[in-house]
Amino acid sequence: MYNQAVRAEIVSVGTEILLGQIVDTNAAYLGGVLAEYGMEHTHRQTVGDNLERLTECLRLALSRSDLVFTIGGLGPTQDDLTRDGIAAALGDELIADPALEEQLKNLFAKRNLKWVDSQLRQALRPTCAEPIPNPNGTAPGLICRRDGKTVIALPGPKPEFEGMVNASVRSELGRLSGGRVFLSRVVRVAGIGEAMVEQQLLDLMEGGNPTVAPYAKDAEVHLRVTAASESAEAAEAAILPVVQEIRARLGRAVYGLDEDSLETAVVRALIARGQTVGVVESCTGGGLGRRLTGVPGSSGAFVGGFLTYSNRMKEQLVGVSSSLLEEHGAVSAPCAEAMASGGRERLGVDWCIAITGIAGPDGETPEKPVGLVYVGLAGPEGVTSREWRFIGRRETIRNRATQAGLLMLWDQLG
Amino acid sequence: MYNQAVRAEIVSVGTEILLGQIVDTNAAYLGGVLAEYGMEHTHRQTVGDNLERLTECLRLALSRSDLVFTIGGLGPTQDDLTRDGIAAALGDELIADPALEEQLKNLFAKRNLKWVDSQLRQALRPTCAEPIPNPNGTAPGLICRRDGKTVIALPGPKPEFEGMVNASVRSELGRLSGGRVFLSRVVRVAGIGEAMVEQQLLDLMEGGNPTVAPYAKDAEVHLRVTAASESAEAAEAAILPVVQEIRARLGRAVYGLDEDSLETAVVRALIARGQTVGVVESCTGGGLGRRLTGVPGSSGAFVGGFLTYSNRMKEQLVGVSSSLLEEHGAVSAPCAEAMASGGRERLGVDWCIAITGIAGPDGETPEKPVGLVYVGLAGPEGVTSREWRFIGRRETIRNRATQAGLLMLWDQLG
Repeated sequence: MYNQAVRAEIVSVGTEILLGQIVDTNAAYLGGVLAEYGMEHTHRQTVGDNLERLTECLRLALSRSDLVFTIGGLGPTQDDLTRDGIAAALGDELIADPALEEQLKNLFAKRNLKWVDSQLRQALRPTCAEPIPNPNGTAPGLICRRDGKTVIALPGPKPEFEGMVNASVRSELGRLSGGRVFLSRVVRVAGIGEAMVEQQLLDLMEGGNPTVAPYAKDAEVHLRVTAASESAEAAEAAILPVVQEIRARLGRAVYGLDEDSLETAVVRALIARGQTVGVVESCTGGGLGRRLTGVPGSSGAFVGGFLTYSNRMKEQLVGVSSSLLEEHGAVSAPCAEAMASGGRERLGVDWCIAITGIAGPDGETPEKPVGLVYVGLAGPEGVTSREWRFIGRRETIRNRATQAGLLMLWDQLG
Repeated sequence: MYNQAVRAEIVSVGTEILLGQIVDTNAAYLGGVLAEYGMEHTHRQTVGDNLERLTECLRLALSRSDLVFTIGGLGPTQDDLTRDGIAAALGDELIADPALEEQLKNLFAKRNLKWVDSQLRQALRPTCAEPIPNPNGTAPGLICRRDGKTVIALPGPKPEFEGMVNASVRSELGRLSGGRVFLSRVVRVAGIGEAMVEQQLLDLMEGGNPTVAPYAKDAEVHLRVTAASESAEAAEAAILPVVQEIRARLGRAVYGLDEDSLETAVVRALIARGQTVGVVESCTGGGLGRRLTGVPGSSGAFVGGFLTYSNRMKEQLVGVSSSLLEEHGAVSAPCAEAMASGGRERLGVDWCIAITGIAGPDGETPEKPVGLVYVGLAGPEGVTSREWRFIGRRETIRNRATQAGLLMLWDQLG
């Protein structure tokens, strides 16, 4: 850190969060952004829709933090008390802002919505506040500055919240971090475990600027590389060699950056090669096709597939022979390979991934336990398969199996 | 409430929660359980792995609450400070518990894990604490009672956390709620919106015991019916007529109870009728098959399907004619119906659901906007289809489309 860190704190407002009806993903999201900008962030509070308790929580936050965020409670109903709580905690008062009022009325007229006067609550603000525009809803956010402290009020609905964070809050954080720019890239790794990643990158992780922080995500490891610098260009320039070094050490296990998913990387690689892919799924029942077609523009590579949940469908749709099924069973390497080859031929694709396994909780035998999965891959050079023994519940096993299917193809596209 | 409510508070411990690397689903889960038992729950705190700050947060919680939960920080490393923090906040001290030590060593031996002495941290407890057994991991939980206050320490990993909540914590909550038993059933509703549900059930929602609370979940509404009574039997007996009344008013929109999903209800209804189902998916790419096969035992009804992502596959795999595609396009009612009929015939199933649409962000035309989806259903009585215009991002549109497919079949199985 170059300058003394700003102490930031989040106060999430809403009884439905305490009741567990809502999981507070907004606070987690904002926490990640605060980390990017090098804020010191040591406490979070969550409080219900009660003016006295909310005011008390805000006073506590202001006593120990320079920058306090509220999330939620900016709606138009009597339950939406965040404006009142901020004014009380700052010793300020609420005024009706005529510009905000006008803006709200225009918005309602534009959307053909019937105006109700209770909506005017959203035009109230502490006298020390500036409104933050809300591109995705009616509630303006607020930045309140008083006695060296800053309170930023953000709305709870996710698109409104994230829209405001990424537009207005980030530029405020940039200012508060003393003109320093914090930039992060995420290096996405699949196919090797967190311990192995750590072992290979230990020196980078112990370094100072850029910092490299790993976190395990499902069957993947994501590495966040963050640099602080005097300009975005300088931060980029500091990050780049670290990302390259990680790529050099981990090789093909690095499949992408930032928002890339493994299926995005696979689809992109296929399109670059002018190749196509199809699937034949048994225990995953469509999960692999769903992932591949979740990529916008996947029709450039994904053609189609077969869901062969029963033995009869394995025979009928992709031509697995009944003698093979009798001899080896549906959950076997030969069956996975036959599914992949049959699918490749009938779909007329370059690559076909096949998955067959026992997702549980029923269906296991002494030789074939829950979690046993075979992935077959047919391609221009022939057909191969791989055996996996996954541990976990039905959902976990199915997710791991689709991941294994994507990885098997990814490895071939290198 | 029959007796004065117990004030409960959650303190979530972990720097990774503040950094946003973990979304605090545990606190939401426990919040729901506290509501079930009628606890007054007005604050939550989140704090990093720092002994001084943790102790301070616990002191604040103890000053205003009778029952304080900690989540996380019970591991074996130097970062795991919850035991120390509780002892400090209660003015107690930590002792090594020989029985816990023995138990840990046995567990390691049984699992063939190498013992490391740092593991002994997990055998420490405040003198006033009783351990809570952990069926899913090594860290014991703790119940600490002192000066009329109770602190319950729970581990962070989800299976360990939920296992302890549902075993030990629920019985403690039962005791604390003055012998009253709180029971909840969740009535699951699909196909009608929250406002409509509210309008039909307003009198029930305004009633006292049992309470009826709605919450919107994706494309569904879930109604939590909770009764407090002197025994589980009496609470059940109070809930039953309310559930029946909801069923009577909402009819087939009520598809299940508690953990049921719409796909579970559909699979169960098919198995009861001895009927089978298959799918033909375009824009959802396997998402519908994935949901149906996510139900354990779904092989009793689900046979297989076709992923016909390209026009060629719609022709080749399920026999949609090229003239139909030319005249109406792939995103059309006639195409959805032809996909469903072709799939039904080729799979030899009783019912076949087909989905074709524009999930976006690309591919829209002036006549066919992003979000336009046709669902076809072929069954014993013939084939029908329905047009939908969904709003949202690619993922949302695809999820809504699979939900529409399931609902269309569910309506036919009444």
